[in-house]
Amino acid sequence: MTAPFPPSDRTRVRRAAHYAHYERATLHAIIDDAYVCHVAFADASGTHNIPTACWREGEYLYIHGSNGGRMMKVMGQGTQVCVAITHLDGLVLARTAFNHSMNYRSAMIYGAFEAVDGAAEKRHAMEVFMNRIAPGRHADVGPGSDKEFDATTIMRIGLGEAACKVREGGPRDDEEDLALPSWAGVLPFARQRLAPVRDAQCTSPEPEYLAGWARR
Amino acid sequence: MTAPFPPSDRTRVRRAAHYAHYERATLHAIIDDAYVCHVAFADASGTHNIPTACWREGEYLYIHGSNGGRMMKVMGQGTQVCVAITHLDGLVLARTAFNHSMNYRSAMIYGAFEAVDGAAEKRHAMEVFMNRIAPGRHADVGPGSDKEFDATTIMRIGLGEAACKVREGGPRDDEEDLALPSWAGVLPFARQRLAPVRDAQCTSPEPEYLAGWARR
Repeated sequence: MTAPFPPSDRTRVRRAAHYAHYERATLHAIIDDAYVCHVAFADASGTHNIPTACWREGEYLYIHGSNGGRMMKVMGQGTQVCVAITHLDGLVLARTAFNHSMNYRSAMIYGAFEAVDGAAEKRHAMEVFMNRIAPGRHADVGPGSDKEFDATTIMRIGLGEAACKVREGGPRDDEEDLALPSWAGVLPFARQRLAPVRDAQCTSPEPEYLAGWARR
Repeated sequence: MTAPFPPSDRTRVRRAAHYAHYERATLHAIIDDAYVCHVAFADASGTHNIPTACWREGEYLYIHGSNGGRMMKVMGQGTQVCVAITHLDGLVLARTAFNHSMNYRSAMIYGAFEAVDGAAEKRHAMEVFMNRIAPGRHADVGPGSDKEFDATTIMRIGLGEAACKVREGGPRDDEEDLALPSWAGVLPFARQRLAPVRDAQCTSPEPEYLAGWARR
């Protein structure tokens, strides 16, 4: 499951190539830590870059939307896309301005989306998506109606042509700069889960599957 | 400063149009809360989507990179781009699967990058960038050398053709679903600043400008 992808001409990382990763496990982890991706594509009016919810199952990244949405229509034509996900983990302060950097985990997926067809396949995909919020959420809220499914397009893109870049750790100053007096280190970020905010009209007890939300 | 942008054909939001914002203040705030943007563009090998550090001054978003980098080269040709920034603020759990949503603030900027030329202009831009980490950082670390500036391309894109989408608040269930038993509310996210991690070889005291980092 963690065999490396062979990089394509598009996914071979050239800048800061020592940060490149082509292992599936790295790609999976970056996608699985994301709720949103950016989908870049071109149509007659130019190049666009649309944020949309995403999730993964196996070797596919999934998105969904209303049948009538522009992106779903363009994706339905097999348009080539580049899907990007970036997690910013910290600002890296070096002893010189030009050695400053950032710690991040980013993934880039090239290819084209294909529609997930079939009632069972669509229902399964949305179940995976709902349980991505928290395992057990799907069972609590139940599936959509046939009408809702009919109005929704679910699409997926294979992870075959993908690359990741990961930078971690402290500044990498040049040897001759180590004695410079400016502070050097990392200013880290984390994604914090705050306590669930119950809807004013909700009287249901907080479900088991949310108990750990703010601690995760 | 908060006059609305008139939307162009590309930036007029059509899906969930009630979430659209065209005010400069909203756009500025979304950019100013970001350290990284995704730049979508097309070249001979297809559509790409590259994460890169960004900052704002006035009505421009700035990026930088090595002269030799592909993106800087393509940007230098006046290539049309779509720059996207998205902040995810929470997962919105509705009483039915299909009314689930996310709280987010997203910005999309169309146009083309132009090079920031002139030694003074480049130095000023990088000073703004360094102080974006923390006001005072530039004075501590000092500017780059002429050689470093010569090797670096700084580019900016005007904010004239831009749109934002913002969703906030709780679930918006259909009236007839309000009695359903599933838990409804928001699972919020925040970007947490963790305590600065000093480089192992750094002996400088923690500077004043970092004192409030983890509390911001």
